Amino acid sequence: MHSYRPPVDNVLFLLADVLGFYRHANLPGFADAGPDEVAAILGEGARFAKDVLAPLNRTGDIEGCMRHADGSVTTPPGFREAYRAYAGGGWIGLAGDPAHGGQGLPYVLAAAMNEFVTSANMAFGMYPGLTQGAIAALSLHGSEAQKRTYLPKLMSGEWSGTMNLTEPQAGTDLGLLRTIATPNPDGSFAITGTKIFISSGEHDLAENIVHLVLARIDGAPPGTKGLSLFVAPKFLPDAEGAPGPRNAISCLSLERKMGIHGNATCVMSYEGATGWLVGERDKGLRAMFTMMNEARLGVGIQGLALSEAAGQQAACYARERLQGRALGGAALPAAPADPIIVHADIRRTLAAIRGFNIAARALMLSVALDADIAVRSPDEAAREAADDRVGLLTPVIKGVFTDRGFDNAVAAQQVFGGAGYIADTGIEQLVRDARITMIYEGANGIQGLDLVGRKLPRDGGRAITAFFAEVGDFIAAHESEPALTPFVRPLKKGLDDLQGATVWFMANAMTKPDNGAAGASDYLHLLGLVALGHMWGRIAAAVAAKGAATSDREREDLMFGRAFMERTLPETGLRLARIQAGADTIMAIPAGAF
Amino acid sequence: MHSYRPPVDNVLFLLADVLGFYRHANLPGFADAGPDEVAAILGEGARFAKDVLAPLNRTGDIEGCMRHADGSVTTPPGFREAYRAYAGGGWIGLAGDPAHGGQGLPYVLAAAMNEFVTSANMAFGMYPGLTQGAIAALSLHGSEAQKRTYLPKLMSGEWSGTMNLTEPQAGTDLGLLRTIATPNPDGSFAITGTKIFISSGEHDLAENIVHLVLARIDGAPPGTKGLSLFVAPKFLPDAEGAPGPRNAISCLSLERKMGIHGNATCVMSYEGATGWLVGERDKGLRAMFTMMNEARLGVGIQGLALSEAAGQQAACYARERLQGRALGGAALPAAPADPIIVHADIRRTLAAIRGFNIAARALMLSVALDADIAVRSPDEAAREAADDRVGLLTPVIKGVFTDRGFDNAVAAQQVFGGAGYIADTGIEQLVRDARITMIYEGANGIQGLDLVGRKLPRDGGRAITAFFAEVGDFIAAHESEPALTPFVRPLKKGLDDLQGATVWFMANAMTKPDNGAAGASDYLHLLGLVALGHMWGRIAAAVAAKGAATSDREREDLMFGRAFMERTLPETGLRLARIQAGADTIMAIPAGAF
Repeated sequence: MHSYRPPVDNVLFLLADVLGFYRHANLPGFADAGPDEVAAILGEGARFAKDVLAPLNRTGDIEGCMRHADGSVTTPPGFREAYRAYAGGGWIGLAGDPAHGGQGLPYVLAAAMNEFVTSANMAFGMYPGLTQGAIAALSLHGSEAQKRTYLPKLMSGEWSGTMNLTEPQAGTDLGLLRTIATPNPDGSFAITGTKIFISSGEHDLAENIVHLVLARIDGAPPGTKGLSLFVAPKFLPDAEGAPGPRNAISCLSLERKMGIHGNATCVMSYEGATGWLVGERDKGLRAMFTMMNEARLGVGIQGLALSEAAGQQAACYARERLQGRALGGAALPAAPADPIIVHADIRRTLAAIRGFNIAARALMLSVALDADIAVRSPDEAAREAADDRVGLLTPVIKGVFTDRGFDNAVAAQQVFGGAGYIADTGIEQLVRDARITMIYEGANGIQGLDLVGRKLPRDGGRAITAFFAEVGDFIAAHESEPALTPFVRPLKKGLDDLQGATVWFMANAMTKPDNGAAGASDYLHLLGLVALGHMWGRIAAAVAAKGAATSDREREDLMFGRAFMERTLPETGLRLARIQAGADTIMAIPAGAF
Repeated sequence: MHSYRPPVDNVLFLLADVLGFYRHANLPGFADAGPDEVAAILGEGARFAKDVLAPLNRTGDIEGCMRHADGSVTTPPGFREAYRAYAGGGWIGLAGDPAHGGQGLPYVLAAAMNEFVTSANMAFGMYPGLTQGAIAALSLHGSEAQKRTYLPKLMSGEWSGTMNLTEPQAGTDLGLLRTIATPNPDGSFAITGTKIFISSGEHDLAENIVHLVLARIDGAPPGTKGLSLFVAPKFLPDAEGAPGPRNAISCLSLERKMGIHGNATCVMSYEGATGWLVGERDKGLRAMFTMMNEARLGVGIQGLALSEAAGQQAACYARERLQGRALGGAALPAAPADPIIVHADIRRTLAAIRGFNIAARALMLSVALDADIAVRSPDEAAREAADDRVGLLTPVIKGVFTDRGFDNAVAAQQVFGGAGYIADTGIEQLVRDARITMIYEGANGIQGLDLVGRKLPRDGGRAITAFFAEVGDFIAAHESEPALTPFVRPLKKGLDDLQGATVWFMANAMTKPDNGAAGASDYLHLLGLVALGHMWGRIAAAVAAKGAATSDREREDLMFGRAFMERTLPETGLRLARIQAGADTIMAIPAGAF
């Protein structure tokens, strides 16, 4: 099996030359992240991912997690030691508030590191990943006392976190949740109910597990307006904040899943468990939503990470596997056959994967940087613009990166031929692991609906209008540069299609919302294609500006951008056609006929 | 879990009203297949698939096959009894030569039945499926003595068959095969070598296993021109044709695979095993190729079958799962939520799956019928035309049906949300099972190259020219019928794109073959889209001609055709754009840069 190489150089190039990361040194935490520090941090993180986490990925899939008769859960061999080293390295609190034990570094660096961790070992990465979600929830909505109690332990990794939303009858539709919270005399609540699909719900990595739980306070209104958010730790902290008595929370069983076997996906039972309200009562859903951008961005990063890992494995295999001859004559006449990377059909597959990965990484980092700006910038207009862009592009990153990430893992598996179907090769695990990213944190259909139904119309369409201007300005600035023509021309066509789709929605979806819903997923992908194409344009412009200082690798990478513009971007026309097909035909079909 | 319903009515409609099956009553075997007989045969087969095979599918996945210390292999619980009943029902020799124990019925009926069997239980279906491959090879190339010895036992299912091609260093590139056959004094050969990925290579279902093995006779030329085909049974038949002494053939291990766990995929070792030449020496590859159409058609049917099974499960789930409300107001006001089938995003997913399935079934049956005509018609011109069409469309059916079949299984899984990732739901098994169909019997990249490199140019482009005429004539005949406009107009655009791609290849791929290879997969899909669109056109024309005799179901199904023409057929433009992108960009990238 090929060993994973974290794309540190690409991240450093994108941050410095494409995204202008170092121009933001005035923001809090950014002063500590100059070029040398960033290179050192990411280099160290990359080594950890490659040397410690990647070797545990296959065994994690094979061994999986185990629930014991007493309800305890053990993680695969090696995960405990790796987790201790990872937590000890300060990675979990990298971008956390220094007032509560975090390092205060830019979130964009944590996002870059999350890609490396996930490429190396997605199932492992979900333990600290869920903790980061809990940190975000408590940082935004917790009381000062809650922050003091939980945040330092979560950032250090001594304790880990979970998100408890789903119940058997309530997945997408959280209004149907039945878990009940009954007030206790001391101000806490007694929580009772069953939650399913709880990632990292029970395990042996941390000394305590901090559950964030959506529940309905006894007597609260039905639907989403009666939901409150609670913090309910596995062990109740004592006066000194150390883990005290066991709470009435238990793991009933582990789900048998298609993949991510190294992560414990639990059915959790709350039997009068003690919990404390986080934020306002009945405002739990709003609290969830404000932290959802980060969680969804995190899942989008998983899509990219598995695409990268799978693409690397396929490219390595294609350089080594000897079958057939190049059409133009033998490349290795002395060998029994040529490596399959000589074949155009293999190259178009590998180029499509890499062409996506680099642009996706650029887009992900640009949105992560906006997430930093949205909370750290002293300039209100800059904060607002950054927040708009994060809101608009987060469903795109979640939905498009995971759809394409999965497709890319499947395409990479195809390069292996029959060997790709055999477990020992390792590539089929990436396909199985990648599959969940399209489903959790809001299935991708929901991402499209969130984009079209909420993000587009919000504030009079301010975010999408700004996006049109961003891409349009880029085109106007560069369309006269011959070196950029292969990028600018297809981008212009893509932007036209996107604007056409937006106009079509304005004319047809306001009066008939099903027209919006029927085209939402296609619009999500259409916006994603234009955003990715724009990133390739910016990379090409950066290389042109860099001139002789451009490295060979950066120059070669640009060829994947050309292939992306030639072969992937034309998909915008198809997406527009599907959107314009509308909903009439599919809505007219009787339910029984499907 | 939803129980599978075989689409018998749809098959009967397609045969009778769309494909004109009963007009061929003059062909050998067709006289015994009038409407009543066909309905009885398919009805009986459907019941068997639904009641006997489908219930064994999940347990087959969970239990899998087991290899024991003595090298024997046992299949999952229930497979032996089901196999005995299946063989006893005469299904394996349904279309086989009556002179050797077959029923002589049209192959198209066997193809229809293969869809049902595979939808119900793909891993099971591969045991008799491989036997059908062995029957085809021996029927076409075996000596009279070989036919007498093997065919009746294979058709009855007492013995089963395998195909032994792949070796570790030789998958796609069979010229690299190393297995050696040394002549014995009695005219037989001693075969020595290792074969991998051998489906049904060893098991407990039949009393003997008949291996067809590609090997190189000692001293034969290197490459594909030195390959010969051998028959090597597990037990050597005695003078009466009964299984005698054990041959030197053994299963070294079972592959650990992503799916089809109920089928034994073996590493086979030949240690001086006795085998007999089938057909001419050094002409083994040609013998393989002549039977490959049927095998590849069979894999294409698997793609359709899993798409059908997955689509049915998803539709059933979508009618039952209550989440959210219809955008136009509650559909079930008394229930806590509406079934998710009210949502446009779910409907577009389900409609795309069913829109493919029905057209794919029509195309598959039409090609299977051509395969019958190609060997049974007394009219030489009819045989030639049918054979051309089978040759042209077989790679399309193999490649496009399995690519889309897998995508449809993934889309169906998505409808389940989180439940789709859980093993107990059953849908993720269909995704894992479907994945192999894109790989075996020639990975789908090879199907594109076969189409563009061999099938297109053959006989001066006779087959594709005839296909253009077939579709063009349909358009010309129906473009003035308003009821058919939603079908004819998109089909015309699709045909234009296909002809444009063909012209582009003529101008650009002759001089630079990489341009053909780079676009081969897109051309395969482009041709497939037009062929499927044409089928929908023919179905619509058949419904129009049938008038008041059309059933409600047939009329409702037509709506999936409209959705297919609106939402799937526009993909032809994207395929054309990719083809026209050519190979220059991707061929210029250094191998090390990928």
